[in-house]
Amino acid sequence: MASYPDSAACVPMRSVGPLKIVGPELEEEVFLPLATYETPLWASVRRGARAFSSAGGLYVAVLREGMTRSIVCEAEHAEDLRQLAGHLSEYHSKMEAVVAQTGHFVRLQGVHHEIVGSLLFLRFEMTTGDAAGHNMVTKAADAMLSWLLEAFPFLRYVSVSGNICTDKKVSAINGLLGRGKSVVAEATLPFSVCEKILKTTPKKIVDINVKKNFVGSILAGSVRSANAHFANMLLAIYLSTGQDCANIVEGSQGITYVEQRGSDLYFSITLPSIVVGTVGNGKDLPFVQENLKVLGCLPRPDIPGQSARRLAAIVAGSVACGELSLLAAQTNPGELVKTHLRLERASHVQRTSL
Amino acid sequence: MASYPDSAACVPMRSVGPLKIVGPELEEEVFLPLATYETPLWASVRRGARAFSSAGGLYVAVLREGMTRSIVCEAEHAEDLRQLAGHLSEYHSKMEAVVAQTGHFVRLQGVHHEIVGSLLFLRFEMTTGDAAGHNMVTKAADAMLSWLLEAFPFLRYVSVSGNICTDKKVSAINGLLGRGKSVVAEATLPFSVCEKILKTTPKKIVDINVKKNFVGSILAGSVRSANAHFANMLLAIYLSTGQDCANIVEGSQGITYVEQRGSDLYFSITLPSIVVGTVGNGKDLPFVQENLKVLGCLPRPDIPGQSARRLAAIVAGSVACGELSLLAAQTNPGELVKTHLRLERASHVQRTSL
Amino acid sequence: MASYPDSAACVPMRSVGPLKIVGPELEEEVFLPLATYETPLWASVRRGARAFSSAGGLYVAVLREGMTRSIVCEAEHAEDLRQLAGHLSEYHSKMEAVVAQTGHFVRLQGVHHEIVGSLLFLRFEMTTGDAAGHNMVTKAADAMLSWLLEAFPFLRYVSVSGNICTDKKVSAINGLLGRGKSVVAEATLPFSVCEKILKTTPKKIVDINVKKNFVGSILAGSVRSANAHFANMLLAIYLSTGQDCANIVEGSQGITYVEQRGSDLYFSITLPSIVVGTVGNGKDLPFVQENLKVLGCLPRPDIPGQSARRLAAIVAGSVACGELSLLAAQTNPGELVKTHLRLERASHVQRTSL
Amino acid sequence: MASYPDSAACVPMRSVGPLKIVGPELEEEVFLPLATYETPLWASVRRGARAFSSAGGLYVAVLREGMTRSIVCEAEHAEDLRQLAGHLSEYHSKMEAVVAQTGHFVRLQGVHHEIVGSLLFLRFEMTTGDAAGHNMVTKAADAMLSWLLEAFPFLRYVSVSGNICTDKKVSAINGLLGRGKSVVAEATLPFSVCEKILKTTPKKIVDINVKKNFVGSILAGSVRSANAHFANMLLAIYLSTGQDCANIVEGSQGITYVEQRGSDLYFSITLPSIVVGTVGNGKDLPFVQENLKVLGCLPRPDIPGQSARRLAAIVAGSVACGELSLLAAQTNPGELVKTHLRLERASHVQRTSL
Repeated sequence: MASYPDSAACVPMRSVGPLKIVGPELEEEVFLPLATYETPLWASVRRGARAFSSAGGLYVAVLREGMTRSIVCEAEHAEDLRQLAGHLSEYHSKMEAVVAQTGHFVRLQGVHHEIVGSLLFLRFEMTTGDAAGHNMVTKAADAMLSWLLEAFPFLRYVSVSGNICTDKKVSAINGLLGRGKSVVAEATLPFSVCEKILKTTPKKIVDINVKKNFVGSILAGSVRSANAHFANMLLAIYLSTGQDCANIVEGSQGITYVEQRGSDLYFSITLPSIVVGTVGNGKDLPFVQENLKVLGCLPRPDIPGQSARRLAAIVAGSVACGELSLLAAQTNPGELVKTHLRLERASHVQRTSL
Repeated sequence: MASYPDSAACVPMRSVGPLKIVGPELEEEVFLPLATYETPLWASVRRGARAFSSAGGLYVAVLREGMTRSIVCEAEHAEDLRQLAGHLSEYHSKMEAVVAQTGHFVRLQGVHHEIVGSLLFLRFEMTTGDAAGHNMVTKAADAMLSWLLEAFPFLRYVSVSGNICTDKKVSAINGLLGRGKSVVAEATLPFSVCEKILKTTPKKIVDINVKKNFVGSILAGSVRSANAHFANMLLAIYLSTGQDCANIVEGSQGITYVEQRGSDLYFSITLPSIVVGTVGNGKDLPFVQENLKVLGCLPRPDIPGQSARRLAAIVAGSVACGELSLLAAQTNPGELVKTHLRLERASHVQRTSL
Repeated sequence: MASYPDSAACVPMRSVGPLKIVGPELEEEVFLPLATYETPLWASVRRGARAFSSAGGLYVAVLREGMTRSIVCEAEHAEDLRQLAGHLSEYHSKMEAVVAQTGHFVRLQGVHHEIVGSLLFLRFEMTTGDAAGHNMVTKAADAMLSWLLEAFPFLRYVSVSGNICTDKKVSAINGLLGRGKSVVAEATLPFSVCEKILKTTPKKIVDINVKKNFVGSILAGSVRSANAHFANMLLAIYLSTGQDCANIVEGSQGITYVEQRGSDLYFSITLPSIVVGTVGNGKDLPFVQENLKVLGCLPRPDIPGQSARRLAAIVAGSVACGELSLLAAQTNPGELVKTHLRLERASHVQRTSL
Repeated sequence: MASYPDSAACVPMRSVGPLKIVGPELEEEVFLPLATYETPLWASVRRGARAFSSAGGLYVAVLREGMTRSIVCEAEHAEDLRQLAGHLSEYHSKMEAVVAQTGHFVRLQGVHHEIVGSLLFLRFEMTTGDAAGHNMVTKAADAMLSWLLEAFPFLRYVSVSGNICTDKKVSAINGLLGRGKSVVAEATLPFSVCEKILKTTPKKIVDINVKKNFVGSILAGSVRSANAHFANMLLAIYLSTGQDCANIVEGSQGITYVEQRGSDLYFSITLPSIVVGTVGNGKDLPFVQENLKVLGCLPRPDIPGQSARRLAAIVAGSVACGELSLLAAQTNPGELVKTHLRLERASHVQRTSL
């Protein structure tokens, strides 16, 4: 029925770089595979990579990890839920067992609960090895539901997903409690690098980040997010590495924070919800395997989870490069439009001449 | 530099359906091309399409259209901005001219302004023919900036994008003022269709929509959005039709609203920010041309904009099918997990046996 | 300098009820003291109280408690913060001691941290006995800052409030993690009570709650909140009991959830951020002492915290009464306007005839 | 029934200042009447007033005005609503007439509509003379509903308030479209004023505003808001001038924006939703009349609306003073706690010695 189709949507892909990444996950130069219909993105990320590499590299670290799924069930009265919630911690080891039974790699980390009248929402956070873990946590949540309904007969099933997971949807909860990998990236760029490579100054970058990314995002009615275009880079590298690209929705909610330090620029991005894996749906496609191999992100049985953390760090690297480059471009009147038109005309000529 | 690469990220694609769509944009049966790594999506959308078609078709209409770009500039004092804003409407025809000069298809529709201290944000809404219009509105905004800085010398440039556009980012402004196409889709499903095709009841769907999509999304700290997984279908059809898939971020912010009507189910989705086009980046790729042709969405010079509106309607159709099917599945304990595992195993077997 | 003034703003106050409350905090009938310029509120709350009392009483329970304050400091690099955060739990007992030293009643419950580039935000949750605790947690946070800066010399002070407390401001974090008291209230109202006392039907209340409180609040771009007018009742009882009424901002973010059960109405409200106390600023005013006494909310040295929890329950009771009554009124075309005009004319006549 | 009570909640009130205000609404020194249980607020606002006055005064301007109320009704199908919405503008003069018939001072300014499936939300913006206008817009909305249901028989009544008004509730719509008065206030403070009066520096204020008000508010999951404590000042002056203090909920959603200009500090606040009036509920209380008189805010029949705009400007002045002073205090470790304790002890001694 859902057999593999003979046709496919093929998105132009290039590896750009090198980007020098330093930090707990990796210390090396990588080339970033980016699939996109928006070809100027390649030049933009390349420029950012050159800037960071010239500054000694981009520091990247995974701050926490844990895939999430929430369930919702209901009781006759809030009183029943209050009493259950009051004793939930006592059942933690039992819940750990219920989750562990559903797979070799899935482990329960924490449970967040919310009571709304007679409704009970439970948000489970789990480690899922090298997989992004969509199916693992759904399977585990399903088992948890079966156990709950049996152990507490006053509970009734409502849904195996209660929308506070939150999967592929806008939320504040993912930013606050995290989803997938939470990653931070930072670097201090000398004045000369800003001037020569980015054609701007640290002061101009700080300025535009406050006025556009902070004030602008607040005005737009954004939530838990302030950046210029995280989504573009996330999409491009998610596509190239076989990720579920719909997770760019929560992935795009992150913060670009910069400071002027003396005459230099401190630049950072914080990404609380990077949902990526190196095994699972899409990962067995030849070009995905190739990209994961080149990135050094093939799973290592001896260190479960390491390849996914490494990939999350590389994803953050890609985001940092594109974000820095676009902010720099937008500090100069007219630059963005000129560049886009030139690059797209170029790629168009090439394409039609194939 | 940004030449077309020899490599590409190829995402499995299938056309599922047929879905009968009725309404001002089209009245016919269409097959929906969906590219995804999450193969069970095909079966899910197919089931939804069968349900709507069995109910006489899904009504879809484009409520408004207009691509947006915002700029931000600054003055010495808010007083300067207050006076400028007070006279902005007088300059409307001038601004229309400035925009029109930048392209054959781009036309200014409206201007929304915000003053924050000495900062002035202007959000322009424009029609862009059959193109999604990212570049058109950026070029027009750039021209508008040049004119503004010249006409009002007390203004200084800050950024050609002020983040209230809002492009590929979470916001409330896109939902409230719209971005791209605003589309609504609805159908009334007889009890028998819910029972036979969706294995559920109207009451169960109404129930889960309130508890999961409404209460759950509110708890998650979502903004201007309440649905189960709009992003999945948007990604799949955006990929297949050469759209900039990063626009699924704003596209995913929409509302699923359902009611029980007698013994039947009234089902609707509202999508305020569908950013799609039938010309521009990515559209000249062979598989994209093929899909647009099959969908009847190749641009018609005689009716500029018609093919893009038609495509937006078809996109909404895909979203409605997948949303209905997932909600139905989640009303039944265990169904989601069982189906996913079965379908993925199936597609995996097929794939490895190629 | 800030001596007690001879003048005062005197807001009309009435005690309305009785409202029968049942649950862990109290089991009795109470009269609700409400100070307001909007006199129809008294009649509205009275009607709600009559409905709940006729239905056997309103169940109210405090689900959790803990006052919050956040601090923000910074380091040279995110790496320093990552390492500190990784060991934060090891310092928990030390932090408990630092907090305990600052007062007899303040105790550390939990610490939530967030890293944004080189910025570290720490949100402390503390129990504060019978006080709302604004000053207690600020004093404790101040001590915590001193300790942190001394224990981790790489940290620099930024602010004793980092805005994720969140005090008197809109947020999602208060709803998700709670602030002050988190309270739930519920009751099942027979059809006859809805018909006779509320002049409506359970179906109409369920209907308006979905369309106005859920869909309407989502459209408005609200966050973590869906109700008709929690703020009105919070203000009125906060004023009467000497609370810091600016805390109605976070207090107003709560959810009204209702269901039709057979022919009856299940009604509930959930209030995650009720910031109230029975000692501290304002509590020594004669009318406040009088109201607290009548409510049975004078602090009891033998059970610290009990009077504040009891007050929080009574506050939730007031909110439930006003919310139920307004929703009922709005189900009938014209009723709201008619009643308001009649009641205000009445009170106006009275007032001017004094 | 709702007669005027013999009892009242009396909140300590002081007039602090003078604050020199300049701008289109007034050009003079005013004393700000503030009622609060949090006595240190007086000293805080007084300090801010001294700073602004020493800098030549605070510029304040009302950018727009219009009270809002939304209604929600429904149809059988979205198609009916699409057609109605398409012709709504043609009925504008009719709607203006319907509104004008309901009162001498209420006039329709604009209509914002939203369609969600078969639901139609209409948000009306009206001028209401010198009144805050709660009742005027409700009465007008009620009349509009009657007309709509009669003119378009396919419409059914749902509620006279659709929650996108948004009255006394958190939202993004009030910030984006405005509610009541939208006010901006700004001043440039010399370095010496920051140093001598505020015990800080422009750089420190800019720094804390970015890290606490911007990053902190974004982290908290706030929406359309970034400030330290607007709610405190709003409450104090709303109480003193007989306003409906529950409107501090939307009033608190505003933005503090500051810049370093040379060695000086540019400071501004933007308040999109100030709901105040000089006639109506509460205004006839003696102390309210006295305060309005002293503030020069008694209604002038010859210039309807002028006294309310003037009051809104003074309200914004109070907010600016308190916001500036608190931010300054928080730049210095320990200052906030020390001051609070000293001032509260002082006021407590005084009070008990009465």
